[in-house]
Amino acid sequence: MQIRPILEAETELTDRSHAPESVVLSTRVRLARNIDETPFPSRANKSQRREILARCQDAIAGLKMMQKGSVLEMQNLSDPEKQVLVERHLISRELSNDKGESGVIVSRDQSCAIMINEEDHLRIQVLRAGYNFKGAWKVIDRIDTGLEDKLDFAFSPEWGFLTACPTNLGTALRASVMLHLPGLVMASQMEKVVRAVNQMGIAVRGLYGEGTDASGSIFQISNQQTLGESEQDIIKRLTGVLDTVIEQEQNARQKLLENAAPKVLDKIGRAFGALQNGHLLSSAEAMNLLSLIRLGVDFGLLPENERRSVDKFFMTTQPGHIQIISQGDLENSDQRDVERARVLREHFRGLAPLDFDTLEKT
Amino acid sequence: MQIRPILEAETELTDRSHAPESVVLSTRVRLARNIDETPFPSRANKSQRREILARCQDAIAGLKMMQKGSVLEMQNLSDPEKQVLVERHLISRELSNDKGESGVIVSRDQSCAIMINEEDHLRIQVLRAGYNFKGAWKVIDRIDTGLEDKLDFAFSPEWGFLTACPTNLGTALRASVMLHLPGLVMASQMEKVVRAVNQMGIAVRGLYGEGTDASGSIFQISNQQTLGESEQDIIKRLTGVLDTVIEQEQNARQKLLENAAPKVLDKIGRAFGALQNGHLLSSAEAMNLLSLIRLGVDFGLLPENERRSVDKFFMTTQPGHIQIISQGDLENSDQRDVERARVLREHFRGLAPLDFDTLEKT
Repeated sequence: MQIRPILEAETELTDRSHAPESVVLSTRVRLARNIDETPFPSRANKSQRREILARCQDAIAGLKMMQKGSVLEMQNLSDPEKQVLVERHLISRELSNDKGESGVIVSRDQSCAIMINEEDHLRIQVLRAGYNFKGAWKVIDRIDTGLEDKLDFAFSPEWGFLTACPTNLGTALRASVMLHLPGLVMASQMEKVVRAVNQMGIAVRGLYGEGTDASGSIFQISNQQTLGESEQDIIKRLTGVLDTVIEQEQNARQKLLENAAPKVLDKIGRAFGALQNGHLLSSAEAMNLLSLIRLGVDFGLLPENERRSVDKFFMTTQPGHIQIISQGDLENSDQRDVERARVLREHFRGLAPLDFDTLEKT
Repeated sequence: MQIRPILEAETELTDRSHAPESVVLSTRVRLARNIDETPFPSRANKSQRREILARCQDAIAGLKMMQKGSVLEMQNLSDPEKQVLVERHLISRELSNDKGESGVIVSRDQSCAIMINEEDHLRIQVLRAGYNFKGAWKVIDRIDTGLEDKLDFAFSPEWGFLTACPTNLGTALRASVMLHLPGLVMASQMEKVVRAVNQMGIAVRGLYGEGTDASGSIFQISNQQTLGESEQDIIKRLTGVLDTVIEQEQNARQKLLENAAPKVLDKIGRAFGALQNGHLLSSAEAMNLLSLIRLGVDFGLLPENERRSVDKFFMTTQPGHIQIISQGDLENSDQRDVERARVLREHFRGLAPLDFDTLEKT
C-alpha cells in the first residue's frame, strides 16, 4: 500500500501552541502555480501532462522540506487510498477522480502537499495546527521561491499569477481556517454568521465542503478574492473576520453554560456514552459525537490530550480510513459502521468517566 | 417519614425462581371485599368510614403475615409519599387522591397490601416475583379466609361477592401479570397482540396504566371478567393467553437476533452509555433505557443480577421516589431529571463494559 507512511506517521499538526485552540483546528494556505508557455492540465495532451508531471516532481524533489516525502501518482492508487488522501485534505476530490499523469507529493509530516496536474500544474498547500497564518505563510513562501528557481511560472505584470480558472488569478492564494463552532450551531446562529461573513467576500463551507449543517460543527472559512489585493492584505482581512467569528463562538459557549448547562452536559455525556457503547456509527454521527467530545475537553470534562484524539478521529473515522484500517474486508457501509464503532469504543472505553461535578461547581 | 420502612426494605419480590423470568416481571392477584350490611365507601358518611377503617385495621392486625407491616392512613401522608406507594403498586391512584378515613396496610416484605375504603371496603393484593399464580393465590386465599373469620363479608349465593362496581361482582378477583415485551414492541407486533388478547376477554395496559405505547415495553395483562367463572377457571384461562404471549415474545426476540443483531446491540449499547453518562433523564426515557438493559441481561450482555437492579430502578426512578430519595429539595421536573440521571449514573458506572463479542460469537 503506497500511502502507508501517510497513514502511520504521527503528524506535527497536533502542536497546539497557537491559541485559541478550542475554536481553531488548523490553518491552511494554498497557492496555484503554472509553468510558463505550457498548456494548462485540461488543455494538455497525455505526453505533455506526463512531461509536466515529471518536471514538477523533479523540482519538488529538490526542496529540502519535501525530502523523505511520499511521491504518489493517481494511476497507481486504489480507490480507498485516494479516499484517504481526500479525507486528510492532502488532495482534492477532483484530483482523486483523475486517472493519469497527475499526482501529489506529501511531506513526511503531512504539513505540506503539492498536487500536480490538478486544475493547475501545481497546487501547493501548507497546513498548520491551530490559528497560524504567519507560520503557514513563511513555509509556503519558501516552497514557492524554491520552485520558482527551477520552474518558470506563468506570470503577468498586469494580472499576477495566471491560473486555469479566473477565480484564482492574481495572488492565486487561498487562505483558510478550520473552525469548530458548536456554540454557534447549538444557538442556531450559524446562518446569521454565514450571511455576515459572505457579505465581506469570505466563504464558509463544511469540513468536507458541506453547507451550514456541516457535520461535527466544523467550518472552513476562506478568502474568495485573489485579485486586487496583496497576499498580506488578503490574510489581514480574513484574520479580521475570523477574530470576530471566534469571539462570537466563545460568547455563544459562555451563554450556553450560563443558560443551558444541564442540557449541554447531557449532550456531551450521551455522546461519550454512545462512543463508549455504540455498535453502529455512521461517519456523520461519529463527527457529531466527536464534536461534542471536543467541546467537553474545552469545558474541562475530559483531559486536554483528548482534543488531539478527537481531531485525529475526525479524519480516521471517515469511510476511506475505516476501509483501509480494516484491510478492505468490509463489504458495505453497515460493516463500516460496525468497524467504526469498534475503533471508537476501544479508545473511549480507556478514558475515565466524565466528572460533571467539576463543571457544575464552576 | 411514615413510609420509610417501605422505601428501605429489601423486598422478597426479587426471588426469580419462577421462569420464564426474562419475560415475566411479576404476578399479582387482587380480591375486593365488603363488610355485610355496611354502606360502600362512596355511600358511607365520615363516621361510618372511620368505623370501617378501624374494623378493617383491627381485622388485618390479626393476620400473621401482616404483623410488623406498615399501617398507613391517607390523611397522614404527604403527596410524594402517596406517590411512592402508587409507584410501588401498593395503592391505587384513586386511593392516593382520597383525603380521609382510608388507608393501606403493607406487609413487611411488601408482597401484600390491603387498601381500606378505596372503592370497596377492602382491596387485598398479593404480589409474587416472576410467573407464579399458584403462590400468589395460596397466600391471598389464606388472607381472605383469615379476614372472613373476623369480618362478615357481603356475599350473595346468586351473585357471589358483592362489590361497589358491578364489574367486580362474583369472584371480585383481578389476576394479572407484568410482562416485559421489548421484542414484540420492536417488531411492531404489539397492536396485533393486544387486539387478539382483548378478543379473549383479557385486558392489556402499561405499567402505569398506559396503552400500547407503554414506556419500558412493560405491559400488565389481566382478566376482565369476574362473574360466571370460578377463581381457578379465571386464572387458568388467563394463563393460557399469557403462555401464548410469552412464546410470541420469545420468538420475536429470536428473530431480532437473527435479522437485526447489530441494530439491537447498538440500541442496548447506547442505552447503557446514556445511563452511564446522561445528565438529564426523564422518567419515561429512563424506563425505555432500563428496558433495553433488561433485554441486554436476557441476551447475556450484562450480568444476571442486573435484571434485579433494573426491576428495582423501574420503580425507584419514578418521580415520587426521586423526590423522596433526594429529600424533597427538588424544585421542578428538570431538577428531578438531573437527580434521576445522577442515581442511574452512579449505579451503571460501577458495571463492566458490555462485551458485544459474547453475543456476536453465538
